[in-house]
Amino acid sequence: MNSYERIIIGIDPGTNVMGYGILGINNKKLEIIAMGVIKLNKFDSHYLRLRRIFERVTGLINQYLPDEMAIEAPFFGKNVQSMLKLGRAQGVAMAAALNRDIPIAEYEPRKIKLAITGNGAASKEQVAEMLRRTLSIPKNEMPEFLDATDALAAAVCHYYESSKPQTDKGCRSWKEFISKNPDKVKS
Amino acid sequence: MNSYERIIIGIDPGTNVMGYGILGINNKKLEIIAMGVIKLNKFDSHYLRLRRIFERVTGLINQYLPDEMAIEAPFFGKNVQSMLKLGRAQGVAMAAALNRDIPIAEYEPRKIKLAITGNGAASKEQVAEMLRRTLSIPKNEMPEFLDATDALAAAVCHYYESSKPQTDKGCRSWKEFISKNPDKVKS
Repeated sequence: MNSYERIIIGIDPGTNVMGYGILGINNKKLEIIAMGVIKLNKFDSHYLRLRRIFERVTGLINQYLPDEMAIEAPFFGKNVQSMLKLGRAQGVAMAAALNRDIPIAEYEPRKIKLAITGNGAASKEQVAEMLRRTLSIPKNEMPEFLDATDALAAAVCHYYESSKPQTDKGCRSWKEFISKNPDKVKS
Repeated sequence: MNSYERIIIGIDPGTNVMGYGILGINNKKLEIIAMGVIKLNKFDSHYLRLRRIFERVTGLINQYLPDEMAIEAPFFGKNVQSMLKLGRAQGVAMAAALNRDIPIAEYEPRKIKLAITGNGAASKEQVAEMLRRTLSIPKNEMPEFLDATDALAAAVCHYYESSKPQTDKGCRSWKEFISKNPDKVKS
């Protein structure tokens, strides 16, 4: 494995399949290190699924030593029960990161699609194809499950978002604005 | 600390306050080992709260070495967003147990109230008072927050449930029933 300036693990947590993608960055160049899915539907028990998520995400963190975690996190769901289950799946994946002091960022699916394709309503296939081109992935190396590319997309989205130049919009108060922009204040 | 045949950690996960109670069992006698709350509302960030839950529950597991975890888990909530947050809080608490190979059982609040007081609609105060008597806790040692007694109640409920004799109701299929009850089948 090459050494990278920065490694981001992207996670697309689900209760049936969880996708992951490991993104390496060197000198502003993005490279895919690994991606894949953790299949959970072979486990009957909800706890075995959660355990599998925790173990596999911990394993990925130990193997690739990411600096940050980016999670695809829908804020709206069909019903309260499915959201509770999704929250648990997210929670155990997050715990694996928190356990290793890895900061977490989360992005709504629409935000990720917008960042990758320029269209917040893009299909999963469109996101996958755009990622394939951006990261120069050979067609025959594209994964079977789109949960993997969704996870990688979360990592790429986080890279784009965290690389944006700071703007004045980031100031939370007038005081902060003045301290950051003394030249813009007439005395 | 005395040695116990069996130790159960009860958890009442919340996003503002998380309650815990450690129950020790020796020769069918229940004893309280510890109980308290983890206050989370001093943390602004959602991730700091989740991290605090994971760290504290891990700490309690390391300190008291419980054999099982019992969680109070409502299956219905006000809205999808609050259920997602609750799911995450539950998920990180569960991850702390899964990380140490500790089996998890969950109980609805109504089931716990019923097990402790005989009334599924009992108030938190009634549950606390019943626990105080059952476990002979001096009045001045009762905790300020009812999340702590709720957590302890989950542990006691789990003890009661797991100590129930197995009944025929437990059979999942006709085949299983026949194999368990050969005398009830006419040939």
